[in-house]
Amino acid sequence: MKILTFGEIMLRLKTPGVERFFQNPVFEATFGGGEANVAVSLANYGMDVALLTVLPDNPVADSCVRELKYFGVDTSRILRGPGRLGIYYLEAGANQLPSKVVYDRENSAIAVAKPDSIDWEAAFADVNWFHISGITPSLSETAMELSLQSVKEAHNRGITVSCDLNYRKNLWKYGKKASEVMTVLMDSVDVAIANEEDIQMSLGLSSEIKVESGKLDREAYKALTDKVLDLYPNLRLIAVTLRESYSASHNGWSGCMNDRQDFYVSRRYDICNIVDRVGAGDSFCGGLIYGLNHYDSHLDALQFAVAASCLKHSVNGDFNRVSAGDVEKLLQGDGSDRVQR
Amino acid sequence: MKILTFGEIMLRLKTPGVERFFQNPVFEATFGGGEANVAVSLANYGMDVALLTVLPDNPVADSCVRELKYFGVDTSRILRGPGRLGIYYLEAGANQLPSKVVYDRENSAIAVAKPDSIDWEAAFADVNWFHISGITPSLSETAMELSLQSVKEAHNRGITVSCDLNYRKNLWKYGKKASEVMTVLMDSVDVAIANEEDIQMSLGLSSEIKVESGKLDREAYKALTDKVLDLYPNLRLIAVTLRESYSASHNGWSGCMNDRQDFYVSRRYDICNIVDRVGAGDSFCGGLIYGLNHYDSHLDALQFAVAASCLKHSVNGDFNRVSAGDVEKLLQGDGSDRVQR
Amino acid sequence: MKILTFGEIMLRLKTPGVERFFQNPVFEATFGGGEANVAVSLANYGMDVALLTVLPDNPVADSCVRELKYFGVDTSRILRGPGRLGIYYLEAGANQLPSKVVYDRENSAIAVAKPDSIDWEAAFADVNWFHISGITPSLSETAMELSLQSVKEAHNRGITVSCDLNYRKNLWKYGKKASEVMTVLMDSVDVAIANEEDIQMSLGLSSEIKVESGKLDREAYKALTDKVLDLYPNLRLIAVTLRESYSASHNGWSGCMNDRQDFYVSRRYDICNIVDRVGAGDSFCGGLIYGLNHYDSHLDALQFAVAASCLKHSVNGDFNRVSAGDVEKLLQGDGSDRVQR
Amino acid sequence: MKILTFGEIMLRLKTPGVERFFQNPVFEATFGGGEANVAVSLANYGMDVALLTVLPDNPVADSCVRELKYFGVDTSRILRGPGRLGIYYLEAGANQLPSKVVYDRENSAIAVAKPDSIDWEAAFADVNWFHISGITPSLSETAMELSLQSVKEAHNRGITVSCDLNYRKNLWKYGKKASEVMTVLMDSVDVAIANEEDIQMSLGLSSEIKVESGKLDREAYKALTDKVLDLYPNLRLIAVTLRESYSASHNGWSGCMNDRQDFYVSRRYDICNIVDRVGAGDSFCGGLIYGLNHYDSHLDALQFAVAASCLKHSVNGDFNRVSAGDVEKLLQGDGSDRVQR
Amino acid sequence: MKILTFGEIMLRLKTPGVERFFQNPVFEATFGGGEANVAVSLANYGMDVALLTVLPDNPVADSCVRELKYFGVDTSRILRGPGRLGIYYLEAGANQLPSKVVYDRENSAIAVAKPDSIDWEAAFADVNWFHISGITPSLSETAMELSLQSVKEAHNRGITVSCDLNYRKNLWKYGKKASEVMTVLMDSVDVAIANEEDIQMSLGLSSEIKVESGKLDREAYKALTDKVLDLYPNLRLIAVTLRESYSASHNGWSGCMNDRQDFYVSRRYDICNIVDRVGAGDSFCGGLIYGLNHYDSHLDALQFAVAASCLKHSVNGDFNRVSAGDVEKLLQGDGSDRVQR
Amino acid sequence: MKILTFGEIMLRLKTPGVERFFQNPVFEATFGGGEANVAVSLANYGMDVALLTVLPDNPVADSCVRELKYFGVDTSRILRGPGRLGIYYLEAGANQLPSKVVYDRENSAIAVAKPDSIDWEAAFADVNWFHISGITPSLSETAMELSLQSVKEAHNRGITVSCDLNYRKNLWKYGKKASEVMTVLMDSVDVAIANEEDIQMSLGLSSEIKVESGKLDREAYKALTDKVLDLYPNLRLIAVTLRESYSASHNGWSGCMNDRQDFYVSRRYDICNIVDRVGAGDSFCGGLIYGLNHYDSHLDALQFAVAASCLKHSVNGDFNRVSAGDVEKLLQGDGSDRVQR
Repeated sequence: MKILTFGEIMLRLKTPGVERFFQNPVFEATFGGGEANVAVSLANYGMDVALLTVLPDNPVADSCVRELKYFGVDTSRILRGPGRLGIYYLEAGANQLPSKVVYDRENSAIAVAKPDSIDWEAAFADVNWFHISGITPSLSETAMELSLQSVKEAHNRGITVSCDLNYRKNLWKYGKKASEVMTVLMDSVDVAIANEEDIQMSLGLSSEIKVESGKLDREAYKALTDKVLDLYPNLRLIAVTLRESYSASHNGWSGCMNDRQDFYVSRRYDICNIVDRVGAGDSFCGGLIYGLNHYDSHLDALQFAVAASCLKHSVNGDFNRVSAGDVEKLLQGDGSDRVQR
Repeated sequence: MKILTFGEIMLRLKTPGVERFFQNPVFEATFGGGEANVAVSLANYGMDVALLTVLPDNPVADSCVRELKYFGVDTSRILRGPGRLGIYYLEAGANQLPSKVVYDRENSAIAVAKPDSIDWEAAFADVNWFHISGITPSLSETAMELSLQSVKEAHNRGITVSCDLNYRKNLWKYGKKASEVMTVLMDSVDVAIANEEDIQMSLGLSSEIKVESGKLDREAYKALTDKVLDLYPNLRLIAVTLRESYSASHNGWSGCMNDRQDFYVSRRYDICNIVDRVGAGDSFCGGLIYGLNHYDSHLDALQFAVAASCLKHSVNGDFNRVSAGDVEKLLQGDGSDRVQR
Repeated sequence: MKILTFGEIMLRLKTPGVERFFQNPVFEATFGGGEANVAVSLANYGMDVALLTVLPDNPVADSCVRELKYFGVDTSRILRGPGRLGIYYLEAGANQLPSKVVYDRENSAIAVAKPDSIDWEAAFADVNWFHISGITPSLSETAMELSLQSVKEAHNRGITVSCDLNYRKNLWKYGKKASEVMTVLMDSVDVAIANEEDIQMSLGLSSEIKVESGKLDREAYKALTDKVLDLYPNLRLIAVTLRESYSASHNGWSGCMNDRQDFYVSRRYDICNIVDRVGAGDSFCGGLIYGLNHYDSHLDALQFAVAASCLKHSVNGDFNRVSAGDVEKLLQGDGSDRVQR
Repeated sequence: MKILTFGEIMLRLKTPGVERFFQNPVFEATFGGGEANVAVSLANYGMDVALLTVLPDNPVADSCVRELKYFGVDTSRILRGPGRLGIYYLEAGANQLPSKVVYDRENSAIAVAKPDSIDWEAAFADVNWFHISGITPSLSETAMELSLQSVKEAHNRGITVSCDLNYRKNLWKYGKKASEVMTVLMDSVDVAIANEEDIQMSLGLSSEIKVESGKLDREAYKALTDKVLDLYPNLRLIAVTLRESYSASHNGWSGCMNDRQDFYVSRRYDICNIVDRVGAGDSFCGGLIYGLNHYDSHLDALQFAVAASCLKHSVNGDFNRVSAGDVEKLLQGDGSDRVQR
Repeated sequence: MKILTFGEIMLRLKTPGVERFFQNPVFEATFGGGEANVAVSLANYGMDVALLTVLPDNPVADSCVRELKYFGVDTSRILRGPGRLGIYYLEAGANQLPSKVVYDRENSAIAVAKPDSIDWEAAFADVNWFHISGITPSLSETAMELSLQSVKEAHNRGITVSCDLNYRKNLWKYGKKASEVMTVLMDSVDVAIANEEDIQMSLGLSSEIKVESGKLDREAYKALTDKVLDLYPNLRLIAVTLRESYSASHNGWSGCMNDRQDFYVSRRYDICNIVDRVGAGDSFCGGLIYGLNHYDSHLDALQFAVAASCLKHSVNGDFNRVSAGDVEKLLQGDGSDRVQR
Repeated sequence: MKILTFGEIMLRLKTPGVERFFQNPVFEATFGGGEANVAVSLANYGMDVALLTVLPDNPVADSCVRELKYFGVDTSRILRGPGRLGIYYLEAGANQLPSKVVYDRENSAIAVAKPDSIDWEAAFADVNWFHISGITPSLSETAMELSLQSVKEAHNRGITVSCDLNYRKNLWKYGKKASEVMTVLMDSVDVAIANEEDIQMSLGLSSEIKVESGKLDREAYKALTDKVLDLYPNLRLIAVTLRESYSASHNGWSGCMNDRQDFYVSRRYDICNIVDRVGAGDSFCGGLIYGLNHYDSHLDALQFAVAASCLKHSVNGDFNRVSAGDVEKLLQGDGSDRVQR
């Protein structure tokens, strides 16, 4: 089982703790990005996963590659090309003060990569599962073309395609609306992951679900996901993350899934002292891909994905530094802490 | 619109995080003090504000001035004189362990400044609003005299005077009781800000209000503030901050205001992961002065002040490092976190 | 009044904040261990307390001794011998992610010390109270023999013996079960401290109490502690700590005590933003020994112990860096924070 | 006397101490850039100086502006526009291991600013001295046009123009050679600053001077600077910095100047424990502009510039955090340390 | 070309900067050990290298493996077994204050590994070059047996064997003298690396060479290395590192080599601001193995090794974080710093 | 042998590394002061030493006492009284940039202590050696009176009195000149320590010695110290420290001594990478008192003092964190570094 994820990996410059920008003249400097985060999750669970991306050829990008190796991600399919290493600045919030992200990712190597710059045969060698998100096609016209190519190439090879719809309103600047592109891309997708807003903005389907209520409107979610499954016949299942955002420090977290056979609802976690919620959706995707490949039951897969991404909220950085064992302990236990000694 | 605040700015030596004194051989070193905190808030909201204070002439005090410039505070009215830079040590608490403040501010330059050392004509040039607190007159006999001079000089020039009653029991050591001085000072005040304890200790008015209950006794507060307004005919309005202190990490926060026309009660915020509550009252004052000068409605002004000071609890340091936009987002939203990206 | 505690002190290597192992290439490096933690608590409360332990003769162990001196612990009875300084690695958790402890304490100087290596006459000179825990006899066969010797030697000298039953499942590797040893050791004990699990694993007494429920089953605890008192006629009293573990960040904390005369239940504290819970049980022991020697009432002693160990949850490190005054303030107050200035 | 400097200010991301990239997941985050560094030096010496630059409109750029305010630089002429905040990464070397700079400054706001985007009338209001460097015209075709405009506009207004020739081989990518542009720009320059390589690469004048020798070839430098003065009749004087680079930690530092009247050679400093040499040339420019405006003697001005930039080697960051008093102490003394207490 | 190195990798706990033990309650936590350091050097130069070692099965050891992956070292031959992760504590010196190392490596997994615990067939699969040092046989009787086995197994397979004689007086505690073992091991060695003291203590050959003199006694080194080559007919060449130790901050560094054909002497480097000299010998070995496999000339190989290990003195940590390109720049240049931008 | 030192201990707030004030918002926070530094040196060498001082009664001063305990200094004679904890700010220099000290020590507890506030009988109980410096009498009129009392009381009890003349030009503000007081104090002194400037400013003896020359003018120093011995018949010996200050990073360091029998000159150390020279003179005093009590030869004592204080330059903080063993290693060796492992 070999997994390939395709997308941008950026330098993440975060203020320490919950400091405001330049409260201290320092940034925590790590790396992150939706599909890279998924790859790291999968490597942490012991899976064979490669990241397909384009990076510039300089020592900072070299460090990025090394960091992926640290986690055991296969970096042999990473290309080097013109353009820069994308950056995002993160000012972490707390309580009523939300986190702020400032993107500086224009003209990144992946955004300026030409449509014919990827040798799909080499990229997909031995690959059984391909993962992409709605971020890659939002970066530039050429990145959009590469994205559409990628899913088609994967689909044609019989590779399972998963996609995190992942809508970012500050991207999509090159002239296309998300829904124009994502609805096409979805035709090649087998497994979709999304939240309420993603479905609405990426697929153009509106609903009146309010996740903030803290009570899952089971019927509404079933109806919405049924609608998606109806529209995209290739789609085998769709999973939805449900975040109740009480404050920057306190969220509820759960998920649901529709696999045409059944509609599943996960356990719900109350997370009162959030350490870092960036990358939680990606860690859900990583957990789901792992779960779908390790459990017979789709509910078990969903529960794994939700538990894994619940834990992500307690880990600083985009990458979900937990093992499958850590997730299983949460699944088996009650989420309380007995110091493990 | 030019605002002048008058008071001491100190070096603040805080243990990192929630460490006890000298758990690590290091102090976070920033600056703070009631009126300086108000000035920084106002500068952050884009207002033209100067701090009037006295500092010694040494490189550490030079850094203090530079830090004020960083925030855009006009430092041209800062005087240099004999005496030292006051200091306060802060050991931050959490849960049931309260924060501890150790003052080392005796013989500071402002405390030893002579009554005739300030040229009021220069200090008040172009000023429309003057802010002082109950701390400045508590520092020394001469600081008390300068404080009384300042409000009279402001009042005589038709400048609006606001005062944060701000009672500190470890100050007032030079022989006067707070109420002896503050009741005189209040005769020149247009806008008063206080909490329960301040009103009692600074104005000698007792009440049996218990803010800890978590439920605002609206009638009691109306009655108490009516009494203050009756006693001080120059007073246009009085605003009261309401802190419910469940633990060092968890407070409720709201406010009310009486403008002789009406009695207003603000939205209440539940703050469960307090980062730093020192300076919250000052950030309320800053928000109120901004609000009274930018909104037609007094309730809107109060809501801005409460929201601004709610956010202060998530910012480390005396200064409230948020913009008017940050406050407005909280006012418009629901205090939940959607990462802003 | 001179107290002696006997046990291992280790180097504690903790990740900063709530970081995962090697997220940064750094460890917080402090010292800790059950009986040393008790000694530091007692020294912090102004008591004359010595630690009896064995350390290697190298500069890192020298720093350990200096650190104990910092807190005023009498280090004159510390022996130097072959073997190493034990270590434990700690990865701090948050929310649903539990803390992890990795022990590296085999072949420590105390574990390899020979049974005849301690001069009990010198060790117990002037001592009135002796404290040990269930950890020391778990380290090695020889440490077990030294432990049994120690309580007998103390008992024979008329010294009060307290013991924290403290069961650690990852120790006890040398061939004996905890209950085989601890039931013997208990014959010389006057004051026992334990939690539910300790009683079960160390004394072989089972019960069906579930502390997680958040509601103290008073009758069940009375019955269980009655049973212990029945079995060990030398025992004057037994105190039990009650932890309700909702998450790694949120616990309830209280205690009860049975002194054959009466059964006491303490106030309960809700701790929502745990800083560090390691050593909380030790700080309870320290508080109890102090309380039993300073208060006439056993309930007062219990309340002191519970309040002291409640505060420990807000202090990073094994040592409970609070004074008797800090504990008394919590006992007198309501656990809310009014910044102390 | 009002000075204007024009150029890019970047975010500087430096590894801590002499660490290699990502040895720790952190960057020191400060700001710097040739002309901004000059402005900060001048503000530190008490001069009235403004920076003319273009920045994007985001919170990171806001912090950049605040940082300039901290040093007292007039930021009122800073424009906001499309494009990004340029970045440079710095890995500091030591001994035989040189420092490395990775530029990420393409498409910065100043590089993409349109030629007509600056209102020169407003920019030059009250300005008496204008400073630019060879970096600005290297950034992009439009930045080159703005640069040429700027010196002409300044010259036409009778403003003294100084220029640091400052050749950077990794810039100049848009199609022009440095010498094609700089020779034109020089026609409007009154005061030029350069090192050997700058003169060669920016003005196309070759010489066989070897600065590494540690012995100044006085005649060769006089001849070379005479040649420059002959070629550019508007030029009043040219100053040359002389760096002998023995290792990344040890340099010799001095300077010389030709003002058509005389040829001056400064004192030479041996700097054996370099803290940070980036920005030394800029601090020389700042010192020279200050010196030319404060001393009657050109030699005194040169000595000030060399001493000021000698001190820069002991200050981390692009900005030369020393006062005129600090420089004067070095000029009067012998460069030895007597702790100033 | 596949290289295998065999030896212990330890946790390295270093005080920050040049602090004394526990001056701050923190340790820099990285990994290191002779043969692992060689492996990282080789991986940094782009070679295919695996580390053969034994580690315990716990999360700290997992991080050690990840760190090796970060550098691209093949970790697939690392075994897990009983025993602990060895540790060494490092207090860095400066000037006249030497660095101190405290070993805590007894009972490490490699030291307690049984002689038959390594499958040599698997370990040596595809291997062309094998590297070991005099440290591995010093750890324990079984480690000595494994060491002797390893070189014989390598030799029998026709694999080139290199050995760093590396004498450590605080090891060799299990009953054998270094010279008893190393003289046997040398029979299977093709390439030896050593310094003066190593030759004397490991091979029992005395000489009266004083490296501190700063002047290489060419004839004496030729004679000494001739003697070694005479004694060990299998030996193809021996390289010697020459450290002149003026202080903890200032060393001279060079090397020489005898390949039976010729005697080579390298360039000498003066290193005045040493950052970290631990691991310099290992980086010499890494450089030499690279050099012997990439250059036709043995002198070129020696020069590469000396330059690579010269650079190591400017890198904190055991690992030599430089690329082949970094070394080549030093070889081509003059060791002075021109900031590379 | 019991030693008592008498003087002020302050909070030392130093910028990290060689940063300028507030380059980062943090101070290293340790404690120091001449006589306390001497006490710590002596405790480090295993001697029984107490510090006599006056401190305020607050948690920061409590930490100061604990820090002294850490080093094994007897703190039982420390008094608590009104006044503050003195502070000094330190900005560390490098190369040509000197370190800066800003004193904030007025109105410290020792400066405001009344002449009758010390019970000399208790203070001198069991004491054989008393040490004071010229700093204590410079603090205030009352501190001067206490200083004169102290030496007389010591002298009358037959206690050996040592005094570091230690002139500080920024103190002595209360109306007396140093020489007016120190010449009186010297009548009770047995052992004097000084540098050139101290002798001149504290004793009013001028000479034309220039220590910067790097060559000791043996005859001049002999003559000068002869003069001092002639003037003060009680004086047994005088030791002089000789600092050659080439830069803030590079000093030469040696000493000489005149004991009426002989004139001794020590070995000279060249210190090229100074870490922290503050407290070097105090560490010389500590080394000398130790040496005079442990060696028969006065030259040996002087050599120990010079070596001990040479090492101080490599230790950050006022306290000389080295053992007698560390000093002896330097005395026996050549000051080069062989890593001690």
